[in-house]
Parts: sequence; structure tokens; C-alpha cells
Amino acid sequence: MKKKTILVTGVAGMIGSELLTRLIKNNKNFIIGIDNFTLGKKSNIKEYFKQKNFIFFNIDLSKKIQNKKLSKLLKKKKLDEIWHLAANSDIKSGILNSEIDYKNTFMTTYYILNFIKKNLKYKSKIIFTSSSAVFGDVKKMINENMPALYSCSNYGSMKLASEAMLSSFSYLNNVKSFIFRLPNVVGEKLTHGVIFDLSNKIKNKKRKYLQVLGNGKQRKPYSHGSEIVDCMLYVKNHMHKSFVNYYNIGNNDKGVEVNKIVELLVEKFNYKKKIKFEKKNSGWKGDVPKYSYSTKKINQLGYKFSLSSLDAIKKTISELEK
Amino acid sequence: MKKKTILVTGVAGMIGSELLTRLIKNNKNFIIGIDNFTLGKKSNIKEYFKQKNFIFFNIDLSKKIQNKKLSKLLKKKKLDEIWHLAANSDIKSGILNSEIDYKNTFMTTYYILNFIKKNLKYKSKIIFTSSSAVFGDVKKMINENMPALYSCSNYGSMKLASEAMLSSFSYLNNVKSFIFRLPNVVGEKLTHGVIFDLSNKIKNKKRKYLQVLGNGKQRKPYSHGSEIVDCMLYVKNHMHKSFVNYYNIGNNDKGVEVNKIVELLVEKFNYKKKIKFEKKNSGWKGDVPKYSYSTKKINQLGYKFSLSSLDAIKKTISELEK
Repeated sequence: MKKKTILVTGVAGMIGSELLTRLIKNNKNFIIGIDNFTLGKKSNIKEYFKQKNFIFFNIDLSKKIQNKKLSKLLKKKKLDEIWHLAANSDIKSGILNSEIDYKNTFMTTYYILNFIKKNLKYKSKIIFTSSSAVFGDVKKMINENMPALYSCSNYGSMKLASEAMLSSFSYLNNVKSFIFRLPNVVGEKLTHGVIFDLSNKIKNKKRKYLQVLGNGKQRKPYSHGSEIVDCMLYVKNHMHKSFVNYYNIGNNDKGVEVNKIVELLVEKFNYKKKIKFEKKNSGWKGDVPKYSYSTKKINQLGYKFSLSSLDAIKKTISELEK
Repeated sequence: MKKKTILVTGVAGMIGSELLTRLIKNNKNFIIGIDNFTLGKKSNIKEYFKQKNFIFFNIDLSKKIQNKKLSKLLKKKKLDEIWHLAANSDIKSGILNSEIDYKNTFMTTYYILNFIKKNLKYKSKIIFTSSSAVFGDVKKMINENMPALYSCSNYGSMKLASEAMLSSFSYLNNVKSFIFRLPNVVGEKLTHGVIFDLSNKIKNKKRKYLQVLGNGKQRKPYSHGSEIVDCMLYVKNHMHKSFVNYYNIGNNDKGVEVNKIVELLVEKFNYKKKIKFEKKNSGWKGDVPKYSYSTKKINQLGYKFSLSSLDAIKKTISELEK
């Protein structure tokens, strides 16, 4: 295997740190990690700080990058792969404040692309984690050939805006890119989302009841972070047809209802207090209460998720318990 | 008819000034115009400066809006319509410098939306001029249900990024919006594009020959600015189904080859020098050399363009002659 220089933004996040664990195993890889610990956690990556093939930079990518050490390093290295994972991942927070997705998703993409422009190789690959949220509340099974016209959250629209930027960037700079549109991702390093929220509420002894957002009938597909990383690595190595390549990744099952997640958590933590639901059918304005994914495109490439949505949820709940 | 307060950004541009001419005729309309004369021209709108139902602000919308007079005015008025036309319109310039489309298309959208947020009415409408360039070089007839996945210019990607932002903004703020994906627009107030470039080269007596970009076989649909404005006004008044409504507007004919445009200009200006073509099939990297539009959606609403692409070209050439 060749020596590869790989840049990972958002390296301390749930997916970034999972990816780092895989990439660092190959001693021939040299990995440059960036994070500013907005959502990422130092504890997710600190075990690698002393490894010789990893260098970490604490940089806020939502501002123009002016790190001399990184600039100097990139003068020596040409990048083989750029995994741009730094982004807001908490949809709800971005509904309340539109600046969050603009800065942490769109501007990070703008600045990192501009920064790496001179350090690309002819065969560089850029990998970006987008989302099913770019489609909005479409009420039918989502495949890659459906137009993304109705994003209803700042999260979804800034992911779509970043995809657009990456498309022209790839074309104009002769690099291949991969846009992975992720479903709901779960795993032990969660920082937000339904399992995270509910388990925190359950653990909080001051709360007199468990308040669920929405009527509990929201149903979405879930995948475990470790499988998401597996799948992205697989697809990146097996296909790059166009200058920009779009893939839905995740399960194609019917997903899991919030009700079921509540039931599993209540059982696991032996929760005895009252559970209250809201009347509305979505958790918050901008939430897509139901969607399902067609994953034909990745399946045809030979990748199939081994964990169902329910498996992924159960695995995460066990991990949280520890 | 009711009194309407209408904000038009990019009011001094080719389309903005054409729109202003229509809107201002109705005395009950009060029009707030914004431009910073980057591409727009004072001469396009100065005849209206003294009219009582028009107020003009020279503001660069690519920066945070801090105009006290405008803020004060908007405290009194609730906006019925916002026509956000301010944008870069010169695709080629944005290929050389990616900051142009980022600032003049994306950031103007970001700042104007954030600025008007408090001054919307329940029935406000937002109109945005997007482009066929969001699709990239798709090599088949473009309709509204095709996914916009392969933008190959910064112009196209920042238009798509703005569409995305407008989608979630409309949903979260309960306003209807219209996204009009324009074809190549021509007219007497041109500031760039093939007719503008070639006629300037022809008029420049120092040039020893006429250099055409590309091999001359690029073929695109063209519409005249006046018809584009007609069509947008028609559609806005006749349909608003979703929170965000997408329309291809323009002709659905096979377009006109650059060769034909050269022929018409040479004839009109009685040009006698040599004409040189390039070997490449597009005018520049990021140019989409051929595309065609399905306009079924506007036709079904009852609107049909009266000028063909060739008519629009001929009309523009006559106007330029004056």
C-alpha cells in the first residue's frame, strides 16, 4: 500500500473519531486531524495524540484558516484524501439560530476547500458527509435521483449548499468527490438526538416525568456510526464515476418509531415515572417526522448494512449504559 | 388593488430595472430598491429617482446590512413581496475568482433574508432568480423534477446554495417563495455574455480579428429580459402550491448556436476582419456548452414565451445597435 496523507476535519466527532481509529491502524497513512471541540470531544481522540502518524490542530474552520504550522505542513505534503466531516450535527439547535449551520457547516466547507486548493494531487479525493435532510419532508422513499428541493431545516439547507460548493469545486479543480447522504446516525459517542436527549432526561433525577418531543410516531432509519464509516470507506475504494458521486448510505428498512426507542430506554434504565407525549407529529418545526431510504446504489456496489435500524438503536443503548 | 410594499434587490440590473418599470406604474405600489452598482447601472433607474412611490438605497448586500434609514423604514412597513435579484450574473468572472459568486450571490441572500425576517407578513412572497446552471452539464432536456447534482461553476453552485437557504427560510418563517431558474437572458441592458463580448470586440477597432470563445457550436436557449419579467409576474400571480415553488422559465426551443450569433453580429455591424474560433467545445471551463429546457410547468399554468431564442437574440442585437 502507498503512503497516504489524509486530512480529517471534525476528527473528534462521533464519525471523525471512528474514522481516525481505522485510518491510523495503517502505519503508512499520515493523518492530519482538525477539530475545535464545538461538538467533538478531546476524549474521543486523545489516545492517538502521541502516535507518530497523527498530527492534530485545534482550529475553528468557520473562520479563515491562518495557522502557520498547518500551512507549512501542507507545503510539504500533497493531500490524497480530505474527509470533511466538521459540521453542525444538531438539527434542532440550528432551527433556533440559523447562524449555527451557516457557520459550522457552510463556512467550514468554504474555508477548508479554499485552503486545500493548492495542495491537491491529481488523484485527490474529497469525502463529505451530507444528510437525508437535504430532501426535506418528501413523504416517499428517497433515492439519489430525487431532486433535493424542499429542505425544511437550516441544517438540511446548509448541507445542500455545501454539496453544491463541492460539486463545482471538484469539477473546476479536477478532483473526485464523494457526497454521502447519511441517515440518523447513532453510537456511543452521541452528542445529541433522540436517544441522547431521552437518556439524559431519564438519568436526571430532578425530572418528575419523561417528556418526549412529538407524538412518538416519528419513524426514521438509524445506522450505527461504525457501520457508516465502514460503508464510506468501502464506497470510496470501489467507485468514482463522476467528478462528484452521491450515495445514500444507511439501512433501507422501515426505521424505528420514537415510541419503540422510549420503550427500550424505559426498560433498560428501569424508569418508573410518567411519560408525556406532545400532540404534534414532529419533534420540532423543521424536523422530518418520517422518511425511508432506498440504498440500491450502495447495495449494487456490494455493500449492505449488517445492523438494522433497531439493531443500531439497541447497540447504542447498550453502549450508553456502560 | 391593494397597496403593496415591494423590496427589489439588484434593482439597477438588467432584470431588476425592467421589473421596476412594471411595478412602479401602479401608484399603489411602494417600491424599495437596493443596488450597489457592481453590475447594475445608475442609468437604468435614474428616471425613477424622483417618483414618490420609489425609494432607493445604495447598499452592498454582501456585508451585514447596517443602514439605519432602511431599518427605520422597514419598522413602519411590512413587506408584501421581496424580489431578490442581486447576484453575480457573469459566470466566467466567478470561475476565475470563487469569491465573486460566494459574496455577490450567496452572502447577499444570507444577509437580505436575515434582515427582512422580522418584517414579513403572513402572506409575504419571496422571489429569487436562479439559473439552469444549477444542473450542470446534464446532456438532456432539463425539467423541474431533475436533481441538481452536477453544478460545474461557482455561479451555479452559489445559486443552488441560495435556493437551499431560501427553501428552509420559507418553511421556517411561513412564507411562500418562488425560485425561477432562468436560461440565458439577453436584452439591451446586457453587461456580459456572448452578445455583449462579441459586439464589444467588433466595435474595438484595435482588434485585428474577432476571437470567438469555443468552437462556435455551443447551443443554448435565450430569452429576452422583458419576457422573463412578464413570465415571473404571471407565475407569481397564478400559482403558489408549496412553501417553495420551482419553475424553469424561458423558451423550450432548441436554442441558438454561437455560430449563428456571430453571423448575425457580423452582418449587422458589417464586420470585415477575420473570425477565429477555438478548438474546445465550451467557451471556458465551467461553461455548459449545450442545454435545453422543458417548460411544461409554466406552459400548463398558461404562460408561453412569444419570442423564440432566435427572436430574443435578434431583438437584442437591434437594441444594441441604437
